[in-house]
Amino acid sequence: MEKYLTHESIKQLEQRKRAALINSLSGFKSLNLVGTTNKQGQTNLAIFNSVFHLGAHPPLMGMIVRPDSVERHTLENILETNYYTLNHVNEDIYLQAHQTSARYSRLESEFESTQLTAIYNNDFLAPYVKESHIRIGLKLVDSKDIELNGTTLLIGEIQQLYFPQNCETTDGYLDIEKAGTIAGTGLDGYHLTKKINRLSYAKTNFNTTPILSNYFE
Amino acid sequence: MEKYLTHESIKQLEQRKRAALINSLSGFKSLNLVGTTNKQGQTNLAIFNSVFHLGAHPPLMGMIVRPDSVERHTLENILETNYYTLNHVNEDIYLQAHQTSARYSRLESEFESTQLTAIYNNDFLAPYVKESHIRIGLKLVDSKDIELNGTTLLIGEIQQLYFPQNCETTDGYLDIEKAGTIAGTGLDGYHLTKKINRLSYAKTNFNTTPILSNYFE
Repeated sequence: MEKYLTHESIKQLEQRKRAALINSLSGFKSLNLVGTTNKQGQTNLAIFNSVFHLGAHPPLMGMIVRPDSVERHTLENILETNYYTLNHVNEDIYLQAHQTSARYSRLESEFESTQLTAIYNNDFLAPYVKESHIRIGLKLVDSKDIELNGTTLLIGEIQQLYFPQNCETTDGYLDIEKAGTIAGTGLDGYHLTKKINRLSYAKTNFNTTPILSNYFE
Repeated sequence: MEKYLTHESIKQLEQRKRAALINSLSGFKSLNLVGTTNKQGQTNLAIFNSVFHLGAHPPLMGMIVRPDSVERHTLENILETNYYTLNHVNEDIYLQAHQTSARYSRLESEFESTQLTAIYNNDFLAPYVKESHIRIGLKLVDSKDIELNGTTLLIGEIQQLYFPQNCETTDGYLDIEKAGTIAGTGLDGYHLTKKINRLSYAKTNFNTTPILSNYFE
């Protein structure tokens, strides 16, 4: 059976139920721990499920920050220092990653509270998460206010990148599943993945898309 | 072994390799087919891996459109009519979904070329994909130009929503894995998922996060 909801019936849902439902609709989500520090060296770590690819040249990533006290610490630090890290969540650290969403005070570091390890690589200002296998250092280069709901799009340019060498493929694609990266759903769902395939560049004169079975080992 | 790339070494990568690499970095991606029509009723269908949740109240979804001839047809139609649909990609249609990224001309509909079925539900202007199990009808309510790379963020408000009733949970969360929705990586990777768990709202006074094992089915 299929269920149909109108705009009006969605608006009338109880607030938490509506949040859970609407957060489920975009599809699977990326899960990243965002590491920051303020000028006094007070670190912060927060899980975000709203990081997305924005462009390869220059290498840009987008991230939505909500007007919420937890995410505000991250935003304040990024605006203060201009630097932040993205650290892919894997199965070994997903409980700790989720725990970073608790409302710790400004003076408590989620690194200590969740026992994740802050590391500083190659003089990058913001802390990375040692337990994460794919880590990206970003510099804030632009931001856009979304007036409709008070959220902010932060745009970062990639400054540093760390990944396991055995996840690299010859054409540049990174096998993030092999690196242990997991996917999210809604506000609180965590999922392993199982690759189906990679598909070659689609052309109009093909009836079916050729399958590149040799891309994954 | 860990590999380290600097901003400079990323810039020096060959263009397609850089695109494949940078597209891999955000994590797992949502996969949606975007259905549109122009005022003459010429339909268009295109796969997007850049749809994300923007807010629940009002119910908003974001989507990045690149300055690319394939995605331009989608953008032109949305700007002309203000309406579009998002249709989750599932395993049964992922080959066809990928094929919509071929450079069909303005006069060819990807619905016909890929043999996906356009349906019009409850007088919604834009076509839905019948073979998709989670379908969302959106109205364009805002857009933001990203000057850094010529992309555009389109913001849509949810007008209609269709999903399988057995994927609904009591707290509003939609079990999109049960609905068959799949996840993407990079430009061309397709993945099934296997749920680990849903976790309860994190609180600072918990050492470990309680696991809600009864949330699924």
